[in-house]
Amino acid sequence: MALRITIFNEGYHERFNPISKEVYPNGMHDALAKAFDGEDVEIRYACQYEENCGLTEEILDNTDVLIWWAHVLHNDLPDEIAQMVQRQVLKGMGLIALHSAHYSKPFRLLMGTSCSLRCHDVGERERLWVIEPGHPIVQGIPPYFELKHEEMYGERFDVPAPDELILGGWFQSGEIFRSGCVWRRGYGKVFYFQPGHETYATYREYPYILKIIRNAAHYVARPANLNANIDCIFAEELERVPDCDRIEY
Amino acid sequence: MALRITIFNEGYHERFNPISKEVYPNGMHDALAKAFDGEDVEIRYACQYEENCGLTEEILDNTDVLIWWAHVLHNDLPDEIAQMVQRQVLKGMGLIALHSAHYSKPFRLLMGTSCSLRCHDVGERERLWVIEPGHPIVQGIPPYFELKHEEMYGERFDVPAPDELILGGWFQSGEIFRSGCVWRRGYGKVFYFQPGHETYATYREYPYILKIIRNAAHYVARPANLNANIDCIFAEELERVPDCDRIEY
Amino acid sequence: MALRITIFNEGYHERFNPISKEVYPNGMHDALAKAFDGEDVEIRYACQYEENCGLTEEILDNTDVLIWWAHVLHNDLPDEIAQMVQRQVLKGMGLIALHSAHYSKPFRLLMGTSCSLRCHDVGERERLWVIEPGHPIVQGIPPYFELKHEEMYGERFDVPAPDELILGGWFQSGEIFRSGCVWRRGYGKVFYFQPGHETYATYREYPYILKIIRNAAHYVARPANLNANIDCIFAEELERVPDCDRIEY
Amino acid sequence: MALRITIFNEGYHERFNPISKEVYPNGMHDALAKAFDGEDVEIRYACQYEENCGLTEEILDNTDVLIWWAHVLHNDLPDEIAQMVQRQVLKGMGLIALHSAHYSKPFRLLMGTSCSLRCHDVGERERLWVIEPGHPIVQGIPPYFELKHEEMYGERFDVPAPDELILGGWFQSGEIFRSGCVWRRGYGKVFYFQPGHETYATYREYPYILKIIRNAAHYVARPANLNANIDCIFAEELERVPDCDRIEY
Repeated sequence: MALRITIFNEGYHERFNPISKEVYPNGMHDALAKAFDGEDVEIRYACQYEENCGLTEEILDNTDVLIWWAHVLHNDLPDEIAQMVQRQVLKGMGLIALHSAHYSKPFRLLMGTSCSLRCHDVGERERLWVIEPGHPIVQGIPPYFELKHEEMYGERFDVPAPDELILGGWFQSGEIFRSGCVWRRGYGKVFYFQPGHETYATYREYPYILKIIRNAAHYVARPANLNANIDCIFAEELERVPDCDRIEY
Repeated sequence: MALRITIFNEGYHERFNPISKEVYPNGMHDALAKAFDGEDVEIRYACQYEENCGLTEEILDNTDVLIWWAHVLHNDLPDEIAQMVQRQVLKGMGLIALHSAHYSKPFRLLMGTSCSLRCHDVGERERLWVIEPGHPIVQGIPPYFELKHEEMYGERFDVPAPDELILGGWFQSGEIFRSGCVWRRGYGKVFYFQPGHETYATYREYPYILKIIRNAAHYVARPANLNANIDCIFAEELERVPDCDRIEY
Repeated sequence: MALRITIFNEGYHERFNPISKEVYPNGMHDALAKAFDGEDVEIRYACQYEENCGLTEEILDNTDVLIWWAHVLHNDLPDEIAQMVQRQVLKGMGLIALHSAHYSKPFRLLMGTSCSLRCHDVGERERLWVIEPGHPIVQGIPPYFELKHEEMYGERFDVPAPDELILGGWFQSGEIFRSGCVWRRGYGKVFYFQPGHETYATYREYPYILKIIRNAAHYVARPANLNANIDCIFAEELERVPDCDRIEY
Repeated sequence: MALRITIFNEGYHERFNPISKEVYPNGMHDALAKAFDGEDVEIRYACQYEENCGLTEEILDNTDVLIWWAHVLHNDLPDEIAQMVQRQVLKGMGLIALHSAHYSKPFRLLMGTSCSLRCHDVGERERLWVIEPGHPIVQGIPPYFELKHEEMYGERFDVPAPDELILGGWFQSGEIFRSGCVWRRGYGKVFYFQPGHETYATYREYPYILKIIRNAAHYVARPANLNANIDCIFAEELERVPDCDRIEY
């Protein structure tokens, strides 16, 4: 069955930053979609400037993997949408959070931490090292590869220790980063992947980057045969009575 | 230096439920405080019916371990207080979430999941098994011990896989539970411990239960010599400009 | 491509224990093979009483998943064969260790611990609970299911904390067990699954048991496109010179 | 109670390598012992060229933390001694494996993997970054610090994913490494720490390195009040009968 992918793009830089406009003339979502060229997938786009940020419960119900790129307008995303994404992940939808999405509301809700990190942007060189070479997300990836220019993201990355640490980043100016991490949350999985600053053609010029995103989409995709009875119930859904015995034994 | 402990108690059942009144005539917070008899600790109480729920930033700044018991009024806790507790944990404060605190707002914010579980209350027998006998939290605890009557909490417990799974629960009616779990979040640690329904004298009659809580308090307590520069910065604290370069390199 | 499965069976009980003979007239390996009925797999058998225990480097080079059942003759397995299995796992082969294989030499070499546990056999009832319902190994499995009779295996199970805890066991006589666990080792994965005492028809009468084994085989199978250069080098393979610079930079 | 520390040193380089002789005129064990200056500890030395490598069961029974430095003579260590160390860790003794001890027999037995890594020695600069700033092992350590010259150890480090990843290394020539890791094994803990090549004065000139070793010794030390009944039983200790029911219920 075709993988159903929704690519969420903030869509700010490509319209207002001249460099990003040039690097991603059709938007970052278009560049990211190319990761799936030749695959049997259904791709849908959602941009933050669209009505309801381009996302509805129905769209997410029919999404196996949600890819999220955003940077400067995180706090403008309505809380209801962030919570809707969080719940969908808990119910099985995969989430790939890219680069500055570390500070996006859905990612922070799922992590429970500040998700802060060290950063600066001087166009330096990055090397990505494979930490778990047997992992599906890095099949076909060599022991390391280089990006000529990237924004530096460095430790301490304030996230829960990942369930799977797959890639590590080395930066020319002296920092390291847990650049490719998986967390399991509820019935779903989250993959965070660090590269992809809006002023560099990271998603256009590096086939390994796109291959990792493609591999990750398959890895975190909503499980095909989840049990019919998803039994995660949120406290808010319970009536306020002095007993939680709602799940019948 | 004396450990500074704050015990948060919802304080509903001991006032309105005749059984709880009888079991915990001085409130559950009083019973929990007895876990520290003979130890060099400073204990402060906070009840949800107090002004501001008995908690302020200043109190938490001076708290090494916050113990949290609540059940039916989770949703009445103001979000601001839940977020204040979350931030304090990320900055190093220890949190011990007891029994029905699995659905409390601070715990859910730190987990990022629904924290739902299976439950029923028929006064059955529980056995607590030590999974990691070398762990500080279970020093002095035998391979297993029994509670004559407890509310059943069963899997699937919808939490992130714990960083340390220390105790497991066996229930007479056929369920199991990850009953003692540690998660590291930010600079702090969270210990969830399942026993303690309000109608059973779990915190009064079982020295092993109190010993585990005492051990846990020492284990999760705020680290004494944290680096002066706590560098977790929340996205909300950043101004909205297209650059996150706030942490100087 | 067809999954290449090798089923290793000690083959003692079915020949010398009258009950096991009756329960598994064609051997346990035959019963286990039925887990793959209707799947595109190649199955090979190896029994401990065969020459070289039925295993060679060439056979394992061409094995994606090795399923291991053994009980009373662990210590008769030559160390060289145990080490050969260990190395194959590190180079990508999947290993499914069943029931009493917790004490098998290959499993213990991969764990590094004693792998001891609590056990007794009184034919009691077991319930298997799903801890991680989103995991591929339990797709199609309900929240719990029962085995009428099983040998009790209980905690403390002396293994490293599993990378993925997927199933938990509840036993009628009061014990719990981490019954389905995954560890990643080198390029390979190990799945331990507790049910399957030789005097009960666990592998014949419970479709869910076979489904879990089938799911697990796909999950732990040797990755298809491992990097050509498997760079795990064993110290024994190095010459004894005061420098480890063997991997050229 | 005073911490009982045994420092194991291979003792080859300081006798036969002119540079090491100059850097560590009294041996590396002497330099390492200085990590505990002013602490209430009992320190004992063991060198590989001593009778029985300087280690006996009685010595280890009375050791809370064993610190291990070795490089070129790993394969000359008798297997019996390596296994004795492994068992002591499983029974609660802490182990700190330094630098090239990644290939030592006790460490490899406890990991179950090849423990191979990428390495070269060109005297480059290393930066050590704190990944988990709330962890006891890095209390008093700044977000990062530098070593002027170190041997490069790089990923892929073929070890099981650590239970706690505490420090990461950045190397001038482009590599990264999981430089400070904790694994729990049995009742004990293992800390691996990467810095310390024999031709650089890493253990003499860097107070932070010694502070980390001192912190780690306290963190991994044998628990004070382990349950009397250590219930890890090794398969080799069982008689060969078709039943493992040795642990009475």
